[in-house]
Amino acid sequence: MKHTKVKDLLNSTTTLQEVNAKGWVRTFRNNQFIALNDGSTINNIQCVVDFENTPEETLKRITTGAAVSVTGTLVESKGAGQKYEIQVSKIEILGDSDAEKFPIQSKKHSLEFLRENAHLRVRTNAFGAIMRVRSVLSFAVHSYFQQRGFVYVNTPIITGSDAEGAGEMFKVTALPFDNTPRTEDGKVNYKEDFFGKETNLTVSGQLEGETFAMALGQIYTFGPTFRAENSNTSRHLAEFWMIEPEVAFNNLDDNMDLAEDFIQYVIKYALDNCGDDLKFLEGRLLEEEKSKPQADRSEMALLEKLNFVLENNFKRVSYTEAIDILRDSTPNKKKKFNYIINEWGADLQSEHERYLVEKHFKCPVILFDYPANIKAFYMRLNEDGKTVRAMDILFPGIGEIVGGSEREERYDVLIEKMKALEIDEEELSWYLDTRRFGSATHSGFGLGFERLVLFVTGMSNIRDVIPFPRTPGSAEF
Amino acid sequence: MKHTKVKDLLNSTTTLQEVNAKGWVRTFRNNQFIALNDGSTINNIQCVVDFENTPEETLKRITTGAAVSVTGTLVESKGAGQKYEIQVSKIEILGDSDAEKFPIQSKKHSLEFLRENAHLRVRTNAFGAIMRVRSVLSFAVHSYFQQRGFVYVNTPIITGSDAEGAGEMFKVTALPFDNTPRTEDGKVNYKEDFFGKETNLTVSGQLEGETFAMALGQIYTFGPTFRAENSNTSRHLAEFWMIEPEVAFNNLDDNMDLAEDFIQYVIKYALDNCGDDLKFLEGRLLEEEKSKPQADRSEMALLEKLNFVLENNFKRVSYTEAIDILRDSTPNKKKKFNYIINEWGADLQSEHERYLVEKHFKCPVILFDYPANIKAFYMRLNEDGKTVRAMDILFPGIGEIVGGSEREERYDVLIEKMKALEIDEEELSWYLDTRRFGSATHSGFGLGFERLVLFVTGMSNIRDVIPFPRTPGSAEF
Repeated sequence: MKHTKVKDLLNSTTTLQEVNAKGWVRTFRNNQFIALNDGSTINNIQCVVDFENTPEETLKRITTGAAVSVTGTLVESKGAGQKYEIQVSKIEILGDSDAEKFPIQSKKHSLEFLRENAHLRVRTNAFGAIMRVRSVLSFAVHSYFQQRGFVYVNTPIITGSDAEGAGEMFKVTALPFDNTPRTEDGKVNYKEDFFGKETNLTVSGQLEGETFAMALGQIYTFGPTFRAENSNTSRHLAEFWMIEPEVAFNNLDDNMDLAEDFIQYVIKYALDNCGDDLKFLEGRLLEEEKSKPQADRSEMALLEKLNFVLENNFKRVSYTEAIDILRDSTPNKKKKFNYIINEWGADLQSEHERYLVEKHFKCPVILFDYPANIKAFYMRLNEDGKTVRAMDILFPGIGEIVGGSEREERYDVLIEKMKALEIDEEELSWYLDTRRFGSATHSGFGLGFERLVLFVTGMSNIRDVIPFPRTPGSAEF
Repeated sequence: MKHTKVKDLLNSTTTLQEVNAKGWVRTFRNNQFIALNDGSTINNIQCVVDFENTPEETLKRITTGAAVSVTGTLVESKGAGQKYEIQVSKIEILGDSDAEKFPIQSKKHSLEFLRENAHLRVRTNAFGAIMRVRSVLSFAVHSYFQQRGFVYVNTPIITGSDAEGAGEMFKVTALPFDNTPRTEDGKVNYKEDFFGKETNLTVSGQLEGETFAMALGQIYTFGPTFRAENSNTSRHLAEFWMIEPEVAFNNLDDNMDLAEDFIQYVIKYALDNCGDDLKFLEGRLLEEEKSKPQADRSEMALLEKLNFVLENNFKRVSYTEAIDILRDSTPNKKKKFNYIINEWGADLQSEHERYLVEKHFKCPVILFDYPANIKAFYMRLNEDGKTVRAMDILFPGIGEIVGGSEREERYDVLIEKMKALEIDEEELSWYLDTRRFGSATHSGFGLGFERLVLFVTGMSNIRDVIPFPRTPGSAEF
């Protein structure tokens, strides 16, 4: 008999059928009630064991974490909290789980303990829910772009180009540390390396993505990116997934429209398709916040917060306006900020972004037209000669979730900028070809996928929304 | 006026409207006819320029590769080959393209030349088509699994575990080659490296994927994987994308059913959604094959071949049967194989796989139950004690496209196998936890995405179906 997924059993329209379910025991109460989960849903199906006619030997093996196959009749449940249950006629233990040794007990574990057991934490309600939501959000990303005719582009992970300067890079090599091949002048001879040159892990697929946008019109990437930065924070990973759309003929306004519409689409998709998981995560968050002082608790519950983002436009504010707001703000005047905002041109810190989003506007904010000298070389210079068509989207509790810009499409202006910043033109000659041949206005942005998952799940540490986090000092599994 | 995509213009249901199109000039004939492409489709829209009322200066700048914005009336075309054209009232040159310097001329370029210009080759018909097909196939992969409740899992790219032994690995490090930190006994001190240990680029997400399948039931990965192997062939890349589903409670038969159903689904999806691109690629292939001797040409045209795979079951053949067939085959008897098959236990080479698929069965073949000692440690031992529940799927023209197995779920048997192969138990202790706690039958496979794209597009070199190929000696862009 073919087994049926727990999700399908719970959504069944008929009862009194003979069914088989396979899954893992979450709890076993009174020698009678198994809460069985198979990962297809956060909900368990209750399996009622006829303990009087089940060998003592078998009953003993029904422990938390054991894999079992249960055959019986699907009936309406008399107990509270579930519509259906299985009246078990046959139970088979597929794989035991020694109750003394299984690390994931039904008691509450700390998130830190679970991180150390990332291969098992997904067997808990919370991490099962997070990973299902993450998966559904991924599909929402692809669905959004594919429905609109964007071409998915797999930009390279190993890159021979380190010119973008988005961050510190990891070296990729097949050379040995011992007896490393050297050139005559004693330098490492990368010609002997696998690719015949120095290579690193990508920090962004944008530059390669631009070359494709200038042929296919609308493209997006969605792949892993890397930072070799010693940022031991709850918002940074050394390996994370990034989404980077790039659209020919889009200017900065189009770019903001796209980013806002995209984010609202994927959040709505999660609300429509992960209801049970999000409800559970909302409860988890409420529970967690009980231990915090009132002032540190969220103003909105999780689902309310997600719906708020759908129903309200993101506030669009120029950098210059933002500086005025910050300069006049109470924390600035009372010197509560670590970095006091004195003048136009200052780079915004996380504390300023959070003030704007969480205290001042109380909604997602798009900041645009930043000073040229705090932004990347490829951003389009405005007519004022001092700002660039950059935009950052700031989210409550998360900070920056999107960074993007209209690109500098004018060859001469771009070259001048590169010269000023001493960026090697030769190295980026292929990139400059997009401006040499059929250049046009185009724009794009990058969205850190894990920050989106953080926001949607209500978790607070980025290590908890990726299966196996990579951070300074940790690359387990 | 907002521009309309060429694809939408060509699919328009009304004419005589004022429209704006933006894109790149493919050709400009008779000072009058622009073939305009914007990447949304392989088809160009013809734009008819009123050359008598257009400045000579502008006409000169309408060159192959130039970006233009064209405004005019959408009318039924009098010319052959297109339903609609634009009678241009206004043309704006957005970005010039110097005809003397633009590398992608309308003449035919060699694939090798185009590989060296991977950032521009996507502006050709063939590579535009390939990249759109690749994108649609990616979405088909996600759609198939998501519709069936599989959870997408991003297994780590940087891995601290090198125990699977699927291939040579690239080292990932932040340590310098000069003055490398050393331990007291002179070894490289990886404790000083970014992750505090030796790390590599993943060769497979399978082991991590299994831990998730044993909690979520059905999972899949789809991400980049790496091989630091000096394989300079038309079928190997150092960086490629792999799809790895893993399903709890599936045995080898279920695994074969899944793989076959999955492959047929994605091919059908491409046929349904990439008709124009595939028709073009079919023509390209026919053209290319004209230069080959009759015997080397494909027996079927591209679309016929794809439909054949949909309409015919894959032939399932045990390794033992395959050996019998090969031993009795003409090329074996006449010693035409480079590796003569003498006895059971021999590893099959590409020439044998191709014989089985292309000459003997003339359809996709699933080989299963391989000798244990030519397969990986984690594959389930059959009752005969000498074969394992492995399967490979072989495709005409491609060879191995899928490798998979039922996994050894019995802790004791697995440990014994690891001991025999001297695989470090301590290193894989987390993996063994899946067998310690609630183990159960489970199965999965890996499909090399680029090989699938090769098959569907009819291309013959794997470097032509990924945006920026990474191969020994080459990591350009």
